Amino acid sequence: MFARLFAPTLEVSAHCDLPCGVYDPAQARIEAESVKAIIGKVADNDDPDFRTRAILIKEERSQLVKHHLTVLWTDYFKPPHFEKYPELHTLVNEACKLASGTGTKADFDEAKADELLSKIDQIAEIFWETKKS
Amino acid sequence: MFARLFAPTLEVSAHCDLPCGVYDPAQARIEAESVKAIIGKVADNDDPDFRTRAILIKEERSQLVKHHLTVLWTDYFKPPHFEKYPELHTLVNEACKLASGTGTKADFDEAKADELLSKIDQIAEIFWETKKS
Amino acid sequence: MFARLFAPTLEVSAHCDLPCGVYDPAQARIEAESVKAIIGKVADNDDPDFRTRAILIKEERSQLVKHHLTVLWTDYFKPPHFEKYPELHTLVNEACKLASGTGTKADFDEAKADELLSKIDQIAEIFWETKKS
Amino acid sequence: MFARLFAPTLEVSAHCDLPCGVYDPAQARIEAESVKAIIGKVADNDDPDFRTRAILIKEERSQLVKHHLTVLWTDYFKPPHFEKYPELHTLVNEACKLASGTGTKADFDEAKADELLSKIDQIAEIFWETKKS
Amino acid sequence: MFARLFAPTLEVSAHCDLPCGVYDPAQARIEAESVKAIIGKVADNDDPDFRTRAILIKEERSQLVKHHLTVLWTDYFKPPHFEKYPELHTLVNEACKLASGTGTKADFDEAKADELLSKIDQIAEIFWETKKS
Amino acid sequence: MFARLFAPTLEVSAHCDLPCGVYDPAQARIEAESVKAIIGKVADNDDPDFRTRAILIKEERSQLVKHHLTVLWTDYFKPPHFEKYPELHTLVNEACKLASGTGTKADFDEAKADELLSKIDQIAEIFWETKKS
Repeated sequence: MFARLFAPTLEVSAHCDLPCGVYDPAQARIEAESVKAIIGKVADNDDPDFRTRAILIKEERSQLVKHHLTVLWTDYFKPPHFEKYPELHTLVNEACKLASGTGTKADFDEAKADELLSKIDQIAEIFWETKKS
Repeated sequence: MFARLFAPTLEVSAHCDLPCGVYDPAQARIEAESVKAIIGKVADNDDPDFRTRAILIKEERSQLVKHHLTVLWTDYFKPPHFEKYPELHTLVNEACKLASGTGTKADFDEAKADELLSKIDQIAEIFWETKKS
Repeated sequence: MFARLFAPTLEVSAHCDLPCGVYDPAQARIEAESVKAIIGKVADNDDPDFRTRAILIKEERSQLVKHHLTVLWTDYFKPPHFEKYPELHTLVNEACKLASGTGTKADFDEAKADELLSKIDQIAEIFWETKKS
Repeated sequence: MFARLFAPTLEVSAHCDLPCGVYDPAQARIEAESVKAIIGKVADNDDPDFRTRAILIKEERSQLVKHHLTVLWTDYFKPPHFEKYPELHTLVNEACKLASGTGTKADFDEAKADELLSKIDQIAEIFWETKKS
Repeated sequence: MFARLFAPTLEVSAHCDLPCGVYDPAQARIEAESVKAIIGKVADNDDPDFRTRAILIKEERSQLVKHHLTVLWTDYFKPPHFEKYPELHTLVNEACKLASGTGTKADFDEAKADELLSKIDQIAEIFWETKKS
Repeated sequence: MFARLFAPTLEVSAHCDLPCGVYDPAQARIEAESVKAIIGKVADNDDPDFRTRAILIKEERSQLVKHHLTVLWTDYFKPPHFEKYPELHTLVNEACKLASGTGTKADFDEAKADELLSKIDQIAEIFWETKKS
């Protein structure tokens, strides 16, 4: 399934609100992968200064996840998408909450990072379906 | 008059994703007022360099509107709010689109700025209702 | 109640250095309220990671207070204002220091946050007086 | 060749200088695709305000390309990589210049965007080779 | 010559609001020099896209001037300095206005850039006097 | 003394990628001085909250060092410079690594800050040589 998700990267794209028409859920995923990696690194390192840096950087990376997801939600997805995928609002909202102060920003919980990645993959799946149609 | 202006600040609040619990739709409204004022200023000034600066600054201010609105949507509003106000997802999404590359970023259209302000007021109305309950 | 809250927004305004002519001391106040709320939250929570996040976010919010205050000082207030209110320079300068590394950034001292809020209210009072005249 | 380049995205990753160990040249490529798309959009649209917005956004996206490339150069690539790939310094430097004020920032030249994309692909190829070994 | 250039760096300093104690008016001056250079470049280049880029970049650099000056005013200068140099508030305020929407941001006027540089030099002179005492 | 300090500012310069032609290695040095000062301050202060703030600010300042150095590397230095100074790529790369997660960001090691300052001085020496020729 992962392979299928990333197969379409031929159309790889970003967002700029010109709009340039270039969007890609990979941007959110990359930052979420980073959040997960940070959590793993802290588990292996008991230096308190390292933990402080990890908190600070996890904060930034989680924020980037939220940024990339809200870009998709506000700029890429259009009313027909929300009609066709009625769960889409909730899905993006839950993913953002998972990258917020009640989510990956709050602690070093790998399960939350995994849940976030899973939500991003669900959003990506919808995204690529809409690109095909 | 000053007292009246600042009386409501007891509930006034910002956002910081600690979360500090401080949110205020006024932040989005202030930036949208700025967008509208920029449009008015350009109507009264035919210096092309001024127009360029206005485009650039309108871009930033519209972006801030989107930022403040998505903060409310991802961090303040919770599942019970979305249940009670089923139009809320669409409302925030439409407001953000009005501040995007297909909205106030795109041109100098005062009607779009007014529509954006009106959506922000609808969101604020819901916001303050949820604060009371 | 909503009407009362938003009644003053006719004058509500932000800053953009076009200049759009839209300024509002509420922007500084909202961030200072957030700083105060953060201090309160830390008092109720002894998780060291939470404290680290609180320090980091308090830093950002204090910086935003300084930003919004210096915008008023450099862009909104003009020579006649400084003549009419000779204490204004010192007032803004002291407020900024209260949001600096010797102020709310330095520790979790609610008294400092209150003092900062009080200074912002004094600046706001002058601000709204100048808007009336 | 492109497929090969992007096949390894199983390890998809970002950068955070913890370092989290997560890097991915796709981040630079996505922004460069956006730059190219902006150039194409301007060719199809003769509204001067649109052109102004395109210049401004192209500036930002080009800057992001430079950011993501210098992250790879300063943080991911290590002395053994530079020894094994002696052209790597020049390659990254040239790619950055192609995204600078003498490159895609300067004008709306699709050939420059293509050249930039091609350099990024060469960097990515080296990157993925180093990941395999 | 190199030695001479870098000899003064013993006192050279930046700002970080720890506070680290490192401040240097050169930071504001460098950005103001950049603003002046941009104005000169536009005078020699009649490409309208170049002019657009120049406006956008002049905006950023002028903003950096304001940032560095307000850092000195809010963080470095203390009450005894303001007492000893009663013109200091006005001097910094005027310099910031010269880098604002009524100053170098507004147009391509080399005289304004020169006036800004002159004010920065006056601030720097006071700054270095306070460092000696 | 003031005259001597500011005498070299004729060549003083920043970077804006217009490009404005204004560059100055002092920008990187000032931030690196700040990093060193932060390390010294932490050695004299055992408040854990102060240490947290120091980590966070040291992170930002180190990042600014990297930013200013990569600007020189990508925008100021041209192929003839790299030919004439074959060590230049490695020098800048090593300096950036010294300001990264394996350098001054990682811990409070004054020796690393000194090594970083020394590398910046070597880059500056080459820089000023190229300006003379």
